[in-house]
Amino acid sequence: MTELNLDRIASRLEGLEETIIHRLIDRAQWSVNDAAYTPGQSGFAGGEPRSLFELRLYCHEKMDATFGRFCVPEERPFNTNLPAPQRAVNLPDTGLRIRKLDSVNLTQPVLDTYRLLLPLICPAGDDGQYGSSAEHDVYAVQAIARRIHYGALYVAESKYRADADGYSRLIRENNRDALMEKLTRKGVEDKIIVRVKEKVKNIQGKINKSVRNAVNPEVIITYYRNFIIPVTKQGQILYLMNREPEQGND
Amino acid sequence: MTELNLDRIASRLEGLEETIIHRLIDRAQWSVNDAAYTPGQSGFAGGEPRSLFELRLYCHEKMDATFGRFCVPEERPFNTNLPAPQRAVNLPDTGLRIRKLDSVNLTQPVLDTYRLLLPLICPAGDDGQYGSSAEHDVYAVQAIARRIHYGALYVAESKYRADADGYSRLIRENNRDALMEKLTRKGVEDKIIVRVKEKVKNIQGKINKSVRNAVNPEVIITYYRNFIIPVTKQGQILYLMNREPEQGND
Repeated sequence: MTELNLDRIASRLEGLEETIIHRLIDRAQWSVNDAAYTPGQSGFAGGEPRSLFELRLYCHEKMDATFGRFCVPEERPFNTNLPAPQRAVNLPDTGLRIRKLDSVNLTQPVLDTYRLLLPLICPAGDDGQYGSSAEHDVYAVQAIARRIHYGALYVAESKYRADADGYSRLIRENNRDALMEKLTRKGVEDKIIVRVKEKVKNIQGKINKSVRNAVNPEVIITYYRNFIIPVTKQGQILYLMNREPEQGND
Repeated sequence: MTELNLDRIASRLEGLEETIIHRLIDRAQWSVNDAAYTPGQSGFAGGEPRSLFELRLYCHEKMDATFGRFCVPEERPFNTNLPAPQRAVNLPDTGLRIRKLDSVNLTQPVLDTYRLLLPLICPAGDDGQYGSSAEHDVYAVQAIARRIHYGALYVAESKYRADADGYSRLIRENNRDALMEKLTRKGVEDKIIVRVKEKVKNIQGKINKSVRNAVNPEVIITYYRNFIIPVTKQGQILYLMNREPEQGND
Protein backbone atom coordinates (compact mmCIF):
# COMPACT_ATOMS: atom_id res chain seq x y z
CA MET A 1 0.00 0.00 0.00
CA THR A 2 3.02 2.27 -0.43
CA GLU A 3 1.17 4.15 -3.18
CA LEU A 4 -1.09 5.65 -0.52
CA ASN A 5 1.57 7.06 1.76
CA LEU A 6 0.86 10.79 1.87
CA ASP A 7 4.55 11.75 1.76
CA ARG A 8 5.04 9.59 -1.29
CA ILE A 9 2.02 11.17 -2.97
CA ALA A 10 3.25 14.68 -2.18
CA SER A 11 6.67 13.76 -3.60
CA ARG A 12 5.13 12.49 -6.79
CA LEU A 13 3.06 15.68 -7.16
CA GLU A 14 6.13 17.80 -6.54
CA GLY A 15 8.09 15.86 -9.16
CA LEU A 16 5.32 16.33 -11.72
CA GLU A 17 5.63 20.11 -11.36
CA GLU A 18 8.92 20.27 -13.22
CA THR A 19 7.47 18.34 -16.12
CA ILE A 20 4.52 20.73 -16.38
CA ILE A 21 6.83 23.75 -16.23
CA HIS A 22 9.27 22.32 -18.81
CA ARG A 23 6.46 21.59 -21.22
CA LEU A 24 4.77 24.96 -20.86
CA ILE A 25 8.10 26.72 -21.45
CA ASP A 26 8.75 24.54 -24.50
CA ARG A 27 5.29 25.35 -25.90
CA ALA A 28 5.90 29.05 -25.27
CA GLN A 29 8.64 29.02 -27.90
CA TRP A 30 5.89 29.22 -30.54
CA SER A 31 3.30 31.91 -31.06
CA VAL A 32 -0.28 31.59 -29.89
CA ASN A 33 -1.23 30.36 -33.39
CA ASP A 34 -5.02 30.56 -33.21
CA ALA A 35 -5.32 28.71 -36.51
CA ALA A 36 -4.18 25.49 -34.82
CA TYR A 37 -7.31 25.61 -32.63
CA THR A 38 -9.80 26.60 -35.31
CA PRO A 39 -12.16 23.79 -36.35
CA GLY A 40 -11.83 22.81 -39.99
CA GLN A 41 -8.41 24.44 -40.43
CA SER A 42 -6.20 21.44 -39.71
CA GLY A 43 -4.94 21.32 -43.28
CA PHE A 44 -5.98 17.65 -43.48
CA ALA A 45 -7.79 16.62 -46.61
CA GLY A 46 -11.36 15.34 -46.72
CA GLY A 47 -13.16 18.17 -44.93
CA GLU A 48 -11.75 17.17 -41.53
CA PRO A 49 -13.97 19.11 -39.12
CA ARG A 50 -11.60 19.17 -36.14
CA SER A 51 -8.87 21.68 -35.44
CA LEU A 52 -5.25 20.61 -35.86
CA PHE A 53 -4.82 20.48 -32.08
CA GLU A 54 -7.94 18.37 -31.54
CA LEU A 55 -6.84 16.00 -34.26
CA ARG A 56 -3.30 15.73 -32.93
CA LEU A 57 -4.55 15.05 -29.41
CA TYR A 58 -6.92 12.40 -30.73
CA CYS A 59 -4.25 10.65 -32.85
CA HIS A 60 -1.79 10.78 -29.96
CA GLU A 61 -4.32 9.27 -27.56
CA LYS A 62 -5.26 6.57 -30.08
CA MET A 63 -1.60 5.55 -30.07
CA ASP A 64 -1.36 5.88 -26.28
CA ALA A 65 -4.47 3.74 -25.84
CA THR A 66 -2.97 0.83 -27.78
CA PHE A 67 0.12 1.09 -25.55
CA GLY A 68 -2.07 0.82 -22.45
CA ARG A 69 -1.63 4.34 -21.10
CA PHE A 70 -5.19 4.65 -19.85
CA CYS A 71 -4.91 1.52 -17.72
CA VAL A 72 -2.95 3.79 -15.36
CA PRO A 73 -5.39 5.50 -12.97
CA GLU A 74 -3.91 9.01 -13.23
CA GLU A 75 -3.77 8.90 -17.03
CA ARG A 76 -7.30 9.87 -17.99
CA PRO A 77 -8.01 10.39 -21.68
CA PHE A 78 -9.23 13.60 -23.28
CA ASN A 79 -11.10 11.60 -25.91
CA THR A 80 -13.66 8.82 -25.85
CA ASN A 81 -13.92 6.06 -28.48
CA LEU A 82 -10.31 5.06 -28.09
CA PRO A 83 -9.04 1.60 -29.05
CA ALA A 84 -8.45 -1.14 -26.49
CA PRO A 85 -4.90 -1.69 -25.21
CA GLN A 86 -2.87 -4.11 -27.31
CA ARG A 87 -0.29 -4.53 -24.61
CA ALA A 88 -0.42 -6.21 -21.24
CA VAL A 89 0.04 -3.56 -18.54
CA ASN A 90 0.88 -4.92 -15.10
CA LEU A 91 -0.02 -2.54 -12.34
CA PRO A 92 0.67 -3.04 -8.66
CA ASP A 93 -2.42 -2.80 -6.44
CA THR A 94 -3.11 0.93 -6.42
CA GLY A 95 -5.18 0.88 -3.26
CA LEU A 96 -7.82 3.01 -4.99
CA ARG A 97 -11.45 2.08 -4.40
CA ILE A 98 -13.21 3.15 -7.54
CA ARG A 99 -14.70 0.99 -10.24
CA LYS A 100 -14.93 3.41 -13.16
CA LEU A 101 -11.76 5.51 -13.30
CA ASP A 102 -13.41 7.95 -15.67
CA SER A 103 -15.86 8.95 -12.96
CA VAL A 104 -12.96 11.28 -12.19
CA ASN A 105 -12.09 12.77 -15.56
CA LEU A 106 -11.25 16.45 -15.52
CA THR A 107 -9.76 16.70 -18.97
CA GLN A 108 -12.44 19.06 -20.29
CA PRO A 109 -11.62 21.84 -17.81
CA VAL A 110 -7.92 21.22 -18.54
CA LEU A 111 -8.56 21.92 -22.21
CA ASP A 112 -10.76 24.93 -21.53
CA THR A 113 -8.29 26.66 -19.26
CA TYR A 114 -5.25 25.68 -21.32
CA ARG A 115 -6.59 27.70 -24.23
CA LEU A 116 -6.87 30.70 -21.90
CA LEU A 117 -3.31 30.16 -20.71
CA LEU A 118 -1.68 30.18 -24.16
CA PRO A 119 -1.96 33.93 -24.85
CA LEU A 120 -0.42 34.56 -21.43
CA ILE A 121 2.71 32.50 -22.07
CA CYS A 122 3.23 32.54 -25.86
CA PRO A 123 4.22 35.41 -28.12
CA ALA A 124 1.11 36.96 -29.68
CA GLY A 125 0.19 36.24 -33.24
CA ASP A 126 0.97 33.56 -35.77
CA ASP A 127 4.34 32.09 -36.76
CA GLY A 128 2.92 29.41 -39.05
CA GLN A 129 4.38 26.58 -36.93
CA TYR A 130 1.04 24.92 -36.25
CA GLY A 131 2.40 21.38 -36.21
CA SER A 132 4.97 22.17 -33.53
CA SER A 133 2.43 24.11 -31.49
CA ALA A 134 -0.06 21.25 -31.49
CA GLU A 135 2.64 18.69 -30.73
CA HIS A 136 3.78 20.63 -27.66
CA ASP A 137 0.20 21.31 -26.61
CA VAL A 138 -0.36 17.58 -26.36
CA TYR A 139 2.72 17.16 -24.17
CA ALA A 140 1.62 20.04 -21.94
CA VAL A 141 -2.02 19.09 -21.45
CA GLN A 142 -1.06 15.48 -20.71
CA ALA A 143 1.36 16.61 -18.01
CA ILE A 144 -1.23 18.93 -16.46
CA ALA A 145 -3.95 16.29 -16.55
CA ARG A 146 -1.64 13.67 -15.02
CA ARG A 147 -0.90 15.91 -12.04
CA ILE A 148 -4.55 16.74 -11.49
CA HIS A 149 -5.76 13.15 -11.67
CA TYR A 150 -2.92 11.83 -9.59
CA GLY A 151 -3.73 14.37 -6.89
CA ALA A 152 -7.46 13.77 -7.16
CA LEU A 153 -7.32 9.99 -6.85
CA TYR A 154 -4.47 9.22 -4.50
CA VAL A 155 -4.72 12.21 -2.19
CA ALA A 156 -8.45 11.62 -1.75
CA GLU A 157 -8.05 7.93 -0.94
CA SER A 158 -5.24 8.70 1.45
CA LYS A 159 -7.24 11.40 3.25
CA TYR A 160 -10.24 9.11 3.39
CA ARG A 161 -8.24 6.40 5.10
CA ALA A 162 -6.97 8.86 7.66
CA ASP A 163 -10.56 9.55 8.77
CA ALA A 164 -12.88 7.01 7.24
CA ASP A 165 -15.77 7.74 9.61
CA GLY A 166 -15.65 11.49 9.12
CA TYR A 167 -15.52 11.25 5.33
CA SER A 168 -18.16 8.50 5.14
CA ARG A 169 -20.63 10.65 6.99
CA LEU A 170 -20.13 13.66 4.70
CA ILE A 171 -20.31 11.43 1.61
CA ARG A 172 -23.61 9.89 2.82
CA GLU A 173 -24.96 13.39 3.48
CA ASN A 174 -23.75 14.47 0.01
CA ASN A 175 -22.29 17.50 1.72
CA ARG A 176 -19.82 18.77 -0.85
CA ASP A 177 -19.10 22.03 0.89
CA ALA A 178 -18.08 20.29 4.09
CA LEU A 179 -16.03 17.79 2.08
CA MET A 180 -14.20 20.64 0.35
CA GLU A 181 -13.45 22.25 3.67
CA LYS A 182 -12.25 18.98 5.17
CA LEU A 183 -10.01 18.25 2.15
CA THR A 184 -8.40 21.66 2.00
CA ARG A 185 -4.96 22.14 3.50
CA LYS A 186 -4.24 25.81 3.00
CA GLY A 187 -0.66 25.55 4.29
CA VAL A 188 0.22 22.88 1.71
CA GLU A 189 -1.32 24.93 -1.09
CA ASP A 190 0.68 28.00 -0.13
CA LYS A 191 3.88 25.96 -0.11
CA ILE A 192 3.17 24.63 -3.59
CA ILE A 193 2.69 28.15 -4.93
CA VAL A 194 5.97 29.39 -3.46
CA ARG A 195 7.83 26.34 -4.77
CA VAL A 196 6.39 26.54 -8.30
CA LYS A 197 7.25 30.22 -8.55
CA GLU A 198 10.85 29.55 -7.54
CA LYS A 199 11.09 26.72 -10.04
CA VAL A 200 9.75 28.70 -12.98
CA LYS A 201 12.19 31.51 -12.21
CA ASN A 202 15.08 29.17 -11.69
CA ILE A 203 14.58 26.92 -14.70
CA GLN A 204 14.75 30.01 -16.88
CA GLY A 205 17.59 31.62 -14.97
CA LYS A 206 20.23 31.16 -17.65
CA ILE A 207 18.19 31.53 -20.81
CA ASN A 208 19.16 34.00 -23.46
CA LYS A 209 16.04 36.10 -23.85
CA SER A 210 16.91 37.02 -27.42
CA VAL A 211 16.69 33.31 -28.25
CA ARG A 212 14.12 31.81 -25.89
CA ASN A 213 10.77 33.29 -24.95
CA ALA A 214 10.56 33.47 -21.16
CA VAL A 215 7.41 32.55 -19.26
CA ASN A 216 6.31 34.87 -16.48
CA PRO A 217 6.31 32.94 -13.16
CA GLU A 218 3.25 34.92 -12.02
CA VAL A 219 1.22 33.45 -14.86
CA ILE A 220 2.11 29.91 -13.89
CA ILE A 221 1.37 30.38 -10.21
CA THR A 222 -1.94 32.06 -10.99
CA TYR A 223 -2.75 29.01 -13.11
CA TYR A 224 -1.81 26.74 -10.22
CA ARG A 225 -3.74 28.78 -7.68
CA ASN A 226 -6.87 29.39 -9.73
CA PHE A 227 -7.05 26.17 -11.68
CA ILE A 228 -4.73 23.25 -10.96
CA ILE A 229 -5.18 23.25 -7.19
CA PRO A 230 -8.96 23.84 -7.05
CA VAL A 231 -9.74 21.42 -9.88
CA THR A 232 -7.62 18.75 -8.17
CA LYS A 233 -9.81 19.20 -5.09
CA GLN A 234 -12.96 18.99 -7.20
CA GLY A 235 -11.52 15.72 -8.46
CA GLN A 236 -11.02 14.54 -4.89
CA ILE A 237 -14.70 15.18 -4.18
CA LEU A 238 -15.67 13.32 -7.37
CA TYR A 239 -13.52 10.44 -6.22
CA LEU A 240 -15.07 10.36 -2.77
CA MET A 241 -18.62 10.56 -4.13
CA ASN A 242 -17.82 7.61 -6.42
CA ARG A 243 -15.80 5.64 -3.90
CA GLU A 244 -17.02 2.10 -3.45
CA PRO A 245 -18.51 1.30 -0.05
CA GLU A 246 -16.26 -0.70 2.23
CA GLN A 247 -16.51 -4.43 1.95
CA GLY A 248 -15.80 -6.43 5.07
CA ASN A 249 -12.16 -6.09 6.01
CA ASP A 250 -11.34 -3.18 3.71
CA MET B 1 16.79 34.14 -46.93
CA THR B 2 16.55 34.99 -43.22
CA GLU B 3 16.79 31.27 -42.40
CA LEU B 4 20.45 31.36 -43.45
CA ASN B 5 21.60 34.19 -41.26
CA LEU B 6 24.29 32.67 -39.05
CA ASP B 7 23.17 34.57 -35.95
CA ARG B 8 19.64 33.32 -36.44
CA ILE B 9 20.90 29.75 -36.85
CA ALA B 10 23.03 29.99 -33.72
CA SER B 11 20.02 31.36 -31.83
CA ARG B 12 17.86 28.49 -32.96
CA LEU B 13 20.52 25.96 -31.91
CA GLU B 14 20.86 27.63 -28.55
CA GLY B 15 17.10 27.55 -28.03
CA LEU B 16 16.97 23.85 -28.87
CA GLU B 17 19.42 23.12 -26.04
CA GLU B 18 16.85 23.76 -23.33
CA THR B 19 14.42 21.37 -24.95
CA ILE B 20 17.04 18.62 -25.08
CA ILE B 21 17.96 19.21 -21.44
CA HIS B 22 14.32 19.30 -20.26
CA ARG B 23 13.57 16.06 -22.02
CA LEU B 24 16.62 14.21 -20.77
CA ILE B 25 15.84 15.30 -17.22
CA ASP B 26 12.24 14.18 -17.61
CA ARG B 27 13.36 10.78 -18.94
CA ALA B 28 15.78 10.46 -16.03
CA GLN B 29 12.85 10.26 -13.63
CA TRP B 30 12.49 6.60 -14.62
CA SER B 31 14.97 3.78 -14.24
CA VAL B 32 17.11 2.51 -17.08
CA ASN B 33 14.52 -0.23 -17.72
CA ASP B 34 16.43 -2.49 -20.09
CA ALA B 35 13.29 -4.50 -20.80
CA ALA B 36 11.88 -1.56 -22.79
CA TYR B 37 14.76 -1.96 -25.27
CA THR B 38 14.74 -5.73 -25.52
CA PRO B 39 13.37 -7.07 -28.82
CA GLY B 40 10.26 -9.18 -28.42
CA GLN B 41 9.47 -7.87 -24.93
CA SER B 42 7.11 -5.06 -25.84
CA GLY B 43 4.15 -6.82 -24.24
CA PHE B 44 2.22 -6.46 -27.50
CA ALA B 45 0.35 -9.51 -28.66
CA GLY B 46 1.07 -11.42 -31.86
CA GLY B 47 4.76 -12.11 -31.44
CA GLU B 48 5.74 -8.48 -32.08
CA PRO B 49 9.49 -8.72 -32.70
CA ARG B 50 10.43 -5.13 -31.84
CA SER B 51 11.20 -3.71 -28.44
CA LEU B 52 8.67 -1.45 -26.76
CA PHE B 53 10.84 1.59 -27.49
CA GLU B 54 11.28 0.71 -31.17
CA LEU B 55 7.55 0.17 -31.51
CA ARG B 56 6.69 3.40 -29.72
CA LEU B 57 9.09 5.38 -31.89
CA TYR B 58 7.65 3.80 -35.02
CA CYS B 59 4.03 4.45 -34.02
CA HIS B 60 4.88 8.03 -33.04
CA GLU B 61 6.61 8.66 -36.36
CA LYS B 62 3.73 7.10 -38.29
CA MET B 63 1.48 9.68 -36.67
CA ASP B 64 4.03 12.46 -37.19
CA ALA B 65 4.38 11.53 -40.85
CA THR B 66 0.67 11.97 -41.51
CA PHE B 67 0.90 15.40 -39.86
CA GLY B 68 3.70 16.37 -42.23
CA ARG B 69 6.55 16.52 -39.73
CA PHE B 70 9.14 15.14 -42.12
CA CYS B 71 8.47 17.82 -44.72
CA VAL B 72 10.51 20.03 -42.40
CA PRO B 73 14.22 19.72 -43.31
CA GLU B 74 15.56 19.35 -39.77
CA GLU B 75 12.96 16.72 -38.83
CA ARG B 76 14.51 13.54 -40.19
CA PRO B 77 12.76 10.28 -39.37
CA PHE B 78 14.25 7.36 -37.46
CA ASN B 79 12.15 4.94 -39.48
CA THR B 80 11.60 4.26 -43.14
CA ASN B 81 8.32 3.05 -44.67
CA LEU B 82 6.34 5.89 -43.14
CA PRO B 83 3.00 7.05 -44.57
CA ALA B 84 2.70 10.12 -46.79
CA PRO B 85 1.63 13.41 -45.20
CA GLN B 86 -2.13 13.90 -45.13
CA ARG B 87 -1.79 17.57 -44.40
CA ALA B 88 -0.60 20.46 -46.52
CA VAL B 89 2.57 21.88 -44.97
CA ASN B 90 3.59 25.30 -46.22
CA LEU B 91 7.25 26.01 -45.78
CA PRO B 92 9.02 29.23 -46.61
CA ASP B 93 12.01 28.85 -48.95
CA THR B 94 14.63 27.29 -46.71
CA GLY B 95 17.57 28.30 -48.86
CA LEU B 96 18.92 24.76 -48.63
CA ARG B 97 20.34 23.24 -51.82
CA ILE B 98 19.76 19.56 -51.41
CA ARG B 99 17.34 17.36 -53.26
CA LYS B 100 17.04 14.35 -50.97
CA LEU B 101 16.84 15.54 -47.37
CA ASP B 102 17.54 12.05 -46.11
CA SER B 103 21.01 12.18 -47.63
CA VAL B 104 21.68 13.80 -44.26
CA ASN B 105 20.01 11.46 -41.81
CA LEU B 106 21.95 10.85 -38.61
CA THR B 107 19.20 9.18 -36.63
CA GLN B 108 21.00 5.84 -36.34
CA PRO B 109 23.97 7.27 -34.41
CA VAL B 110 21.46 9.21 -32.28
CA LEU B 111 19.80 5.95 -31.29
CA ASP B 112 23.07 4.14 -30.72
CA THR B 113 24.52 6.78 -28.41
CA TYR B 114 21.22 7.48 -26.66
CA ARG B 115 21.18 3.92 -25.36
CA LEU B 116 24.65 4.48 -23.93
CA LEU B 117 23.51 7.71 -22.31
CA LEU B 118 20.58 6.21 -20.40
CA PRO B 119 22.57 4.36 -17.71
CA LEU B 120 24.49 7.60 -17.09
CA ILE B 121 21.41 9.72 -16.39
CA CYS B 122 18.76 7.29 -15.10
CA PRO B 123 18.62 5.38 -11.83
CA ALA B 124 19.95 1.84 -12.35
CA GLY B 125 17.59 -1.08 -12.58
CA ASP B 126 13.97 -1.57 -13.41
CA ASP B 127 10.92 0.26 -12.05
CA GLY B 128 8.39 -1.44 -14.32
CA GLN B 129 7.39 1.86 -15.95
CA TYR B 130 8.29 0.82 -19.47
CA GLY B 131 5.51 2.77 -21.15
CA SER B 132 6.60 6.06 -19.57
CA SER B 133 10.26 5.36 -20.32
CA ALA B 134 9.59 4.71 -24.00
CA GLU B 135 7.30 7.73 -24.26
CA HIS B 136 9.98 10.04 -22.88
CA ASP B 137 12.67 8.38 -24.98
CA VAL B 138 10.78 9.38 -28.09
CA TYR B 139 10.56 12.99 -26.92
CA ALA B 140 14.28 13.03 -26.12
CA VAL B 141 15.63 11.43 -29.29
CA GLN B 142 13.45 13.67 -31.43
CA ALA B 143 14.82 16.77 -29.71
CA ILE B 144 18.42 15.56 -30.09
CA ALA B 145 17.93 14.65 -33.75
CA ARG B 146 16.29 17.99 -34.51
CA ARG B 147 19.27 19.90 -33.12
CA ILE B 148 21.77 17.79 -35.04
CA HIS B 149 19.97 18.02 -38.36
CA TYR B 150 19.23 21.71 -37.98
CA GLY B 151 22.91 22.36 -37.33
CA ALA B 152 24.02 20.05 -40.12
CA LEU B 153 21.82 21.54 -42.82
CA TYR B 154 21.60 25.23 -42.10
CA VAL B 155 25.04 25.83 -40.67
CA ALA B 156 26.62 24.02 -43.62
CA GLU B 157 24.70 26.01 -46.22
CA SER B 158 25.44 29.23 -44.41
CA LYS B 159 29.17 28.47 -44.20
CA TYR B 160 29.21 27.44 -47.84
CA ARG B 161 27.72 30.75 -48.89
CA ALA B 162 30.33 32.64 -46.92
CA ASP B 163 33.08 31.02 -49.02
CA ALA B 164 31.52 29.25 -51.98
CA ASP B 165 34.79 28.99 -53.92
CA GLY B 166 36.76 27.52 -51.03
CA TYR B 167 34.11 24.93 -50.20
CA SER B 168 33.45 24.03 -53.86
CA ARG B 169 37.07 23.19 -54.36
CA LEU B 170 37.24 20.89 -51.31
CA ILE B 171 33.95 19.25 -52.29
CA ARG B 172 35.25 18.57 -55.83
CA GLU B 173 38.43 17.13 -54.35
CA ASN B 174 36.33 15.01 -51.97
CA ASN B 175 38.68 16.20 -49.23
CA ARG B 176 36.68 15.46 -46.10
CA ASP B 177 39.50 16.15 -43.69
CA ALA B 178 40.05 19.62 -45.05
CA LEU B 179 36.29 20.22 -45.02
CA MET B 180 36.12 19.18 -41.38
CA GLU B 181 38.93 21.54 -40.53
CA LYS B 182 37.33 24.39 -42.45
CA LEU B 183 33.93 23.81 -40.80
CA THR B 184 35.24 23.64 -37.27
CA ARG B 185 34.99 26.68 -35.06
CA LYS B 186 36.60 25.64 -31.82
CA GLY B 187 35.69 28.84 -30.00
CA VAL B 188 31.99 28.35 -30.72
CA GLU B 189 32.13 24.74 -29.56
CA ASP B 190 33.76 25.72 -26.27
CA LYS B 191 31.10 28.35 -25.69
CA ILE B 192 28.35 25.80 -26.26
CA ILE B 193 29.86 23.45 -23.70
CA VAL B 194 30.10 26.15 -21.04
CA ARG B 195 26.55 27.31 -21.72
CA VAL B 196 25.03 23.81 -21.65
CA LYS B 197 26.76 23.01 -18.38
CA GLU B 198 25.40 26.17 -16.78
CA LYS B 199 21.92 25.39 -18.03
CA VAL B 200 21.85 21.82 -16.76
CA LYS B 201 22.98 23.01 -13.34
CA ASN B 202 20.60 25.89 -13.28
CA ILE B 203 17.49 24.10 -14.50
CA GLN B 204 17.90 21.67 -11.63
CA GLY B 205 18.87 24.31 -9.10
CA LYS B 206 15.68 24.14 -7.07
CA ILE B 207 14.76 20.49 -7.37
CA ASN B 208 14.12 18.41 -4.31
CA LYS B 209 16.54 15.54 -4.73
CA SER B 210 14.42 13.21 -2.62
CA VAL B 211 11.68 13.64 -5.25
CA ARG B 212 13.43 14.22 -8.56
CA ASN B 213 16.45 12.39 -9.88
CA ALA B 214 19.11 14.93 -10.82
CA VAL B 215 21.17 14.63 -13.99
CA ASN B 216 24.91 15.23 -13.72
CA PRO B 217 25.87 18.23 -15.91
CA GLU B 218 29.20 16.54 -16.74
CA VAL B 219 27.33 13.69 -18.43
CA ILE B 220 25.39 16.06 -20.64
CA ILE B 221 28.40 18.11 -21.67
CA THR B 222 30.39 14.97 -22.41
CA TYR B 223 27.50 13.90 -24.63
CA TYR B 224 27.56 17.28 -26.35
CA ARG B 225 31.31 17.28 -26.76
CA ASN B 226 31.75 13.67 -27.86
CA PHE B 227 28.58 13.16 -29.82
CA ILE B 228 26.22 16.04 -30.59
CA ILE B 229 28.86 18.49 -31.80
CA PRO B 230 30.99 16.06 -33.87
CA VAL B 231 28.02 14.30 -35.44
CA THR B 232 26.53 17.67 -36.39
CA LYS B 233 29.77 18.40 -38.23
CA GLN B 234 29.68 15.02 -39.92
CA GLY B 235 26.19 15.99 -41.03
CA GLN B 236 27.56 19.26 -42.43
CA ILE B 237 30.03 17.31 -44.53
CA LEU B 238 27.26 14.99 -45.74
CA TYR B 239 25.26 18.04 -46.68
CA LEU B 240 28.14 19.62 -48.56
CA MET B 241 28.95 16.39 -50.42
CA ASN B 242 25.29 16.14 -51.46
CA ARG B 243 24.81 19.82 -52.19
CA GLU B 244 23.44 20.50 -55.65
CA PRO B 245 25.79 22.27 -58.02
CA GLU B 246 25.09 25.94 -58.58
CA GLN B 247 22.67 26.76 -61.35
CA GLY B 248 23.12 30.08 -63.06
CA ASN B 249 22.36 32.88 -60.64
CA ASP B 250 22.35 30.74 -57.48
